[in-house]
Amino acid sequence: MSMNTASGAERLVVIGGDAAGMSAASQARRMKGPDELEIVAFERGHFTSYSACGIPYWVGGDVTDRDRLIARSPQEHQSRDIDLRMRTEVTEIDVAGGRVRARDVDSGAESWTSYDKLVIATGARPIRPDMPGADASGVHGVQTLDDGQALLDTLARTRGRRAVVVGAGYIGVEMAEALIKRDYEVTVVNRGSEPMSTLDPDMGRLVHEAMEGLGITMVNDTEVTKLLTDDDGRVRAVVTRDAEYPADVVVLGIGVRPETGLAQAAGLPLGTHGGLLTDLAMRVRGYENVWAGGDCVEVLDLVSGQERHVPLGTHANKHGQVIGTNAGGGYATFPGVVGTAVSKVCDLEIARTGLREKDARRVGLRFESVTVESTSRAGYYPGASPMTVKMLAERRTGRLLGVQIVGREGAGKRVDIAAVALTAGMTVDQMTALDLGYAPPFSPVWDPVLVAARKAARAVAQRP
Amino acid sequence: MSMNTASGAERLVVIGGDAAGMSAASQARRMKGPDELEIVAFERGHFTSYSACGIPYWVGGDVTDRDRLIARSPQEHQSRDIDLRMRTEVTEIDVAGGRVRARDVDSGAESWTSYDKLVIATGARPIRPDMPGADASGVHGVQTLDDGQALLDTLARTRGRRAVVVGAGYIGVEMAEALIKRDYEVTVVNRGSEPMSTLDPDMGRLVHEAMEGLGITMVNDTEVTKLLTDDDGRVRAVVTRDAEYPADVVVLGIGVRPETGLAQAAGLPLGTHGGLLTDLAMRVRGYENVWAGGDCVEVLDLVSGQERHVPLGTHANKHGQVIGTNAGGGYATFPGVVGTAVSKVCDLEIARTGLREKDARRVGLRFESVTVESTSRAGYYPGASPMTVKMLAERRTGRLLGVQIVGREGAGKRVDIAAVALTAGMTVDQMTALDLGYAPPFSPVWDPVLVAARKAARAVAQRP
Repeated sequence: MSMNTASGAERLVVIGGDAAGMSAASQARRMKGPDELEIVAFERGHFTSYSACGIPYWVGGDVTDRDRLIARSPQEHQSRDIDLRMRTEVTEIDVAGGRVRARDVDSGAESWTSYDKLVIATGARPIRPDMPGADASGVHGVQTLDDGQALLDTLARTRGRRAVVVGAGYIGVEMAEALIKRDYEVTVVNRGSEPMSTLDPDMGRLVHEAMEGLGITMVNDTEVTKLLTDDDGRVRAVVTRDAEYPADVVVLGIGVRPETGLAQAAGLPLGTHGGLLTDLAMRVRGYENVWAGGDCVEVLDLVSGQERHVPLGTHANKHGQVIGTNAGGGYATFPGVVGTAVSKVCDLEIARTGLREKDARRVGLRFESVTVESTSRAGYYPGASPMTVKMLAERRTGRLLGVQIVGREGAGKRVDIAAVALTAGMTVDQMTALDLGYAPPFSPVWDPVLVAARKAARAVAQRP
Repeated sequence: MSMNTASGAERLVVIGGDAAGMSAASQARRMKGPDELEIVAFERGHFTSYSACGIPYWVGGDVTDRDRLIARSPQEHQSRDIDLRMRTEVTEIDVAGGRVRARDVDSGAESWTSYDKLVIATGARPIRPDMPGADASGVHGVQTLDDGQALLDTLARTRGRRAVVVGAGYIGVEMAEALIKRDYEVTVVNRGSEPMSTLDPDMGRLVHEAMEGLGITMVNDTEVTKLLTDDDGRVRAVVTRDAEYPADVVVLGIGVRPETGLAQAAGLPLGTHGGLLTDLAMRVRGYENVWAGGDCVEVLDLVSGQERHVPLGTHANKHGQVIGTNAGGGYATFPGVVGTAVSKVCDLEIARTGLREKDARRVGLRFESVTVESTSRAGYYPGASPMTVKMLAERRTGRLLGVQIVGREGAGKRVDIAAVALTAGMTVDQMTALDLGYAPPFSPVWDPVLVAARKAARAVAQRP
């Protein structure tokens, strides 16, 4: 292996200064000191290691200080012997030559940096609808801290109180909550039949009803065709196939795609979702010394056996940890995901793990699906609140395939029971015997997840 | 098999009308109609199917109506074709003759009832200390609804505000909370070095500190030697080896033993903890047609491989379900427990699963033990509260052995993650990759359980 540095140390180059990239850099630094490993990291923006997931709560006012979303500043990284180059964008990866070209965003100056080991952590980019008005003033994404600040600036100077959120996934519903908290009249415009398309529609319906109960206007089954602007170029309305919604501010929450332009240009392998393909050690497939992680990769779904794109900070951190360990000379793997996600709209908690009905069908699984109503605590204990649990189990084997939960306080994190059971490949019948924590303030004597497992086990047994 | 009933139906006799017994009866009834199976159940008390775990919350005033603790009344059971005989105590089991003798508690009349199948669900009895004054007026256990009512009656007529709780296990700390809520000065007298001996002492210490923060006086490392009474035979003080504590009311929370006098007299097999021994189908070992479940049996601890006595309503319900299915001609098993328990004192949540350090040592396991501090939510999210997680992992294999958690809101039920992982036999290294629900209002980006798993995995790796 070539030794690129004067000192004889190897050089690790990291592209991207957020969760995956800087976790990798930090972990590699823990494994090896600067005499053995030089670490150079490039970040094109102003921030490192921040919680994009926290942006809706900052916009909504739950978090008042932007800097609290920053886990580790550039200076902190630099003080740990990481040569972090801010506002410096990598513009090309030369895999054959073992080097990257980077451009100083402010000066435009470009230079090549060679590497022995490379980490690609370029993240994801928000999907911007290709329609008239999409770039108007008052139209905001919420992917980066800069985006969040721009939205807050707009909210501060906007007198009108009408907000339209485009998209009803996690970001959409969280932003609807944020805007309700800021006293906006909120309309959410959604392409799907119900909000939260990561749930089956029958469970999404519960979210829909709860959102309407919060005073949010939910418009499903429609598509935005254009945004109207006023003479100053400011957005004034959202136009769908069917109607026009006046808007003083528009938030786009229609998802993200892997940011893999550099990787694609370098000929690295991409999957069907546009993300980099890696092996279990998070190495880019076919490359000994190139790793990739975070929102720019696809991950193996352990339940379906297929790759998915799951842009979530918790995975990015795990990827970074695994990459840093391996790049630092140790050994670690990331086996895959089961598709766990949790969110909330005001006090409604929404969680899911594993496969939805359509996912299971798509990969050829036959299943039984059951839904039960239960409560978060013993029915007689104060604060017991209703909870709906849907569970899918494979026919014949009875293997757990997925769980969706909608309820109030205490509902969301119950999905972890199912996430571990999915990872372990448990059957719903095995789950009925799980020894879960029980006391009246915490659970009914049969935890709601166990009630669902019992019903699912009966359903499987009745149609073998 | 003999047919004992005129109709030719088999007869199932159930001894004990609480969770295990009546779950068994109800499930057997679901499996078979009255033409096929006659069900006779004996209960010596006034109540059926009630939540003993709810009594502290009734005493504390969180639950105002006693009847809300009753899941199903005698009349409801009777309306489901169960011949439930209340206030009727079984006094002898004649296994060879296939019959039980029962006595009407009020009239004293006795008679024999024959059975084809027998379910023993006699529960547990509270340990009453054998010391002067233990039966004084104003001294209460909290095992049954009658006990709870008697205590509430005492509280209603007692002017003094000094309460002493003897014992600092789950019942003891829950009763301390109940009495604090009733505006008593509460002293808890405890034999162990810290409260909650189901935790390791270092974790019990956190409970101790929190209880003192609530104004509860916690006296550890001592033994009650006698109770002093006044001229009317009412308790007035608790005397320990070291001191005397004035008391207007005394609550005994020093645990329970399996109620197996009948079973022992009948020659049925008992374990070292005094509970009935069953097989996986919950049949009493060596008996084709006798089942036992609930607080009167010992259960297999799947982590230690040994039997334990774990009196908990959630197990009793599962046992009843399994027994009723089998006695009704179906097939079900109860594989065992991992020792999960959760409780709270005011807003302090306390949870444990698996083995404590001393349990692991006792069964010959060598282990690494780690403790981490984390938070219930992302650190920047409002309401994030500190949480301490202790984790034990086996040396060499890295297998998870146990988890203990002490924290505030959101801490307790996190133990379920570990309970499922223990059931699945996961290693702590495998746990580091678990795909748990993450969003800022629900968890830091690394869930506290994952933080502990990472530290435990490192500890195991460092000393193979």
